[in-house]
Amino acid sequence: MDFSHINEQGRARMVDVSEKEETCRTAIAEGTVKVNDATMSLIKSGGIKKGDVLSVAQVAGIMAAKKTSDTIPMCHPLMLSCVDIRFVLTENEIHIEAQVKCKGSTGVEMEALNAVAAAALTVYDMCKAVQRDIEITSIRLLYKNGGKSGEFKR
Amino acid sequence: MDFSHINEQGRARMVDVSEKEETCRTAIAEGTVKVNDATMSLIKSGGIKKGDVLSVAQVAGIMAAKKTSDTIPMCHPLMLSCVDIRFVLTENEIHIEAQVKCKGSTGVEMEALNAVAAAALTVYDMCKAVQRDIEITSIRLLYKNGGKSGEFKR
Amino acid sequence: MDFSHINEQGRARMVDVSEKEETCRTAIAEGTVKVNDATMSLIKSGGIKKGDVLSVAQVAGIMAAKKTSDTIPMCHPLMLSCVDIRFVLTENEIHIEAQVKCKGSTGVEMEALNAVAAAALTVYDMCKAVQRDIEITSIRLLYKNGGKSGEFKR
Amino acid sequence: MDFSHINEQGRARMVDVSEKEETCRTAIAEGTVKVNDATMSLIKSGGIKKGDVLSVAQVAGIMAAKKTSDTIPMCHPLMLSCVDIRFVLTENEIHIEAQVKCKGSTGVEMEALNAVAAAALTVYDMCKAVQRDIEITSIRLLYKNGGKSGEFKR
Amino acid sequence: MDFSHINEQGRARMVDVSEKEETCRTAIAEGTVKVNDATMSLIKSGGIKKGDVLSVAQVAGIMAAKKTSDTIPMCHPLMLSCVDIRFVLTENEIHIEAQVKCKGSTGVEMEALNAVAAAALTVYDMCKAVQRDIEITSIRLLYKNGGKSGEFKR
Amino acid sequence: MDFSHINEQGRARMVDVSEKEETCRTAIAEGTVKVNDATMSLIKSGGIKKGDVLSVAQVAGIMAAKKTSDTIPMCHPLMLSCVDIRFVLTENEIHIEAQVKCKGSTGVEMEALNAVAAAALTVYDMCKAVQRDIEITSIRLLYKNGGKSGEFKR
Repeated sequence: MDFSHINEQGRARMVDVSEKEETCRTAIAEGTVKVNDATMSLIKSGGIKKGDVLSVAQVAGIMAAKKTSDTIPMCHPLMLSCVDIRFVLTENEIHIEAQVKCKGSTGVEMEALNAVAAAALTVYDMCKAVQRDIEITSIRLLYKNGGKSGEFKR
Repeated sequence: MDFSHINEQGRARMVDVSEKEETCRTAIAEGTVKVNDATMSLIKSGGIKKGDVLSVAQVAGIMAAKKTSDTIPMCHPLMLSCVDIRFVLTENEIHIEAQVKCKGSTGVEMEALNAVAAAALTVYDMCKAVQRDIEITSIRLLYKNGGKSGEFKR
Repeated sequence: MDFSHINEQGRARMVDVSEKEETCRTAIAEGTVKVNDATMSLIKSGGIKKGDVLSVAQVAGIMAAKKTSDTIPMCHPLMLSCVDIRFVLTENEIHIEAQVKCKGSTGVEMEALNAVAAAALTVYDMCKAVQRDIEITSIRLLYKNGGKSGEFKR
Repeated sequence: MDFSHINEQGRARMVDVSEKEETCRTAIAEGTVKVNDATMSLIKSGGIKKGDVLSVAQVAGIMAAKKTSDTIPMCHPLMLSCVDIRFVLTENEIHIEAQVKCKGSTGVEMEALNAVAAAALTVYDMCKAVQRDIEITSIRLLYKNGGKSGEFKR
Repeated sequence: MDFSHINEQGRARMVDVSEKEETCRTAIAEGTVKVNDATMSLIKSGGIKKGDVLSVAQVAGIMAAKKTSDTIPMCHPLMLSCVDIRFVLTENEIHIEAQVKCKGSTGVEMEALNAVAAAALTVYDMCKAVQRDIEITSIRLLYKNGGKSGEFKR
Repeated sequence: MDFSHINEQGRARMVDVSEKEETCRTAIAEGTVKVNDATMSLIKSGGIKKGDVLSVAQVAGIMAAKKTSDTIPMCHPLMLSCVDIRFVLTENEIHIEAQVKCKGSTGVEMEALNAVAAAALTVYDMCKAVQRDIEITSIRLLYKNGGKSGEFKR
């Protein structure tokens, strides 16, 4: 077993997917932002306003998904057909879930993960003035289908 | 206490820093990529090649730091004067640390965090063909100075 | 009737077009820049030079069309197959018309409108030193075909 | 009088501002999106939800302001210190006002105008499925100060 | 014979490829960076380190290939399916070769050439502190296939 | 002597310039596109039209200069205060010269070189349908001043 991203000179390349079949692909990724009570209370009260933290985070996540191949060097450019982001707030956690779809020759898990990371960083950015020790954790793939490697469920 | 990012219409804005003094600012952020033994062994053996996973992750992190205001909606554009990234490999973890410096009216913690996230996602991307349940955790600020809020150490 | 851009949490999403058929799509949009006599006279005389205002506006419009999904948050990325821009100068108006084509699952009207806006803003930018009260008006869709909603003619 | 953007070969250039003094600069621009009753009613009802049309438009406008020099070819890159956007809804119009500040050698009117255009186009994009003949009008400068040309008020 | 990029107003356009067939296309381009003995010796010794000049140049080239339509105004956006870059070091030359593949309506030679240029400029950037008169030469197409114009071999 | 871009782990970094003085800096770079008689004749006749090859190349070069830190991984972001590009046509060569100015902590030679490369590639792109063996050569620095390393003249 070896990394497919390494060429015969031992350097990185963008893997050749030109022979791979175009199929419908879906990926769902998640991540969590850990905040203290005061921050969560502000996020929740802001939640009834029109420009709340989560709305901005959602736009950030969707836009980031579309620019994934610009950020992750070996990612293929892809024509995403759907990006959606959901938030679940528990006592001290903003749980973020991003779903991405695409018809293409390679999967969209990096796009879903990148959307989660950008949304989480945006929550962090908008709350950092009120709390300095926010932490982003558990960014990972939840679900993936399409392509020859088949379905994946965490 | 309220979010400074919210304008009087209850919507998000890019905070006015035009009255803030320009000072030298530093931020250090960290994050961790959790991988299994087989993946770590491949990363380490690839480490002696020229185009290894960590080199690509490092370039990704540095480039992402420079584009932070493009990704995080309310971040101010900043002329970064230094970006550096270090990796420490333990048994099952790639620990990433990014340091960013800038002379400006606002801090560079989001730039350091964004560099860590991009480097971590790049490690994930280059290893995902060999392991599907990689996880990115503990993205957080380690150190920050400059500006009126003073020094922060985790 | 409701906005298709809103998910079940009441937040914005990039609409799922993965089930929509790929068809050839065309859109034509227009817009107008209103200038005074002196500015128009300079634009027209510059028109015989190689680097005139309208040439720069045209390049700006074409490049903006390609980056529409980067600017408009809920726009899908699209592989544009044609972008063309035309100018008609009347006494005090620069009339801009942009045509965009694409084979894809969603229309290209935002791309045509964005091309018009960027071209108009570029005309404004290059003339603002000689006139401060330029106005951009009547940015709108003229024609659209392809997709299930059929042909639209203003 | 001649265009400062034209070099001695008759081609466009990015004007030399290296001798200009750095001053604090503000610009306010406005624009209007004209919609029918049904669309306005949907926008207003969506206004109480968290992911409403105007929140997304606001994020789009702020992000576009930061990328103005990427869209308008002869614009100088600038370190914006503040971007804020306000909406006023009348019977059939969404009135958009963007304020931008910067300390620099050249003004920020293009940044304010670009923010207005991007916000207006985003409103258009999110409403186009329910109304096909939306029109964007009256994009223009309202106020400007800083720099040697002094204050401008429309 | 005339330039296909010129519209009937005598201005540039992005050529209409909507009637062209989608085929698999490959392009290989090359270029050379000329350095003195001292610089080459540093590049070669750095070559055994993990973050060597060529690794960074390779990432830069791959990322630039993906953004070609962002840099070259009349280039069509394309979903690249493969980008690979190889280096051959002779006494005083870093020879760069980039291969790009795509399934699309137009060729990928500009993507291959842009990858070479970005990789060469990155080598220049990382060596300019030790040598000021580095030169980049012979950027040209080596091979191309796919599309109606058939195969090209230099 | 060693590369300043290499950190203590042997990996690339964006060099720390936070201690360097801000000075006015200028760089001039050049490059050449070699074409055959037929291509040159088309370029020259197109030169009297408004949307000629060189106008598009000029806009491309200016826009590329502003995005240099986005393309060249270890380049610092810089607030360019001037970008200008000139063309001289000889029998079979388009000679390109780009001048860039900036007040900052690091030089602008990469910005000037990147402008030349983008302008040259744009000329190539617009002429490639009429000539397949165009070559770009002699991209190099002509002049540089500002900063501690003093003036450089080729």
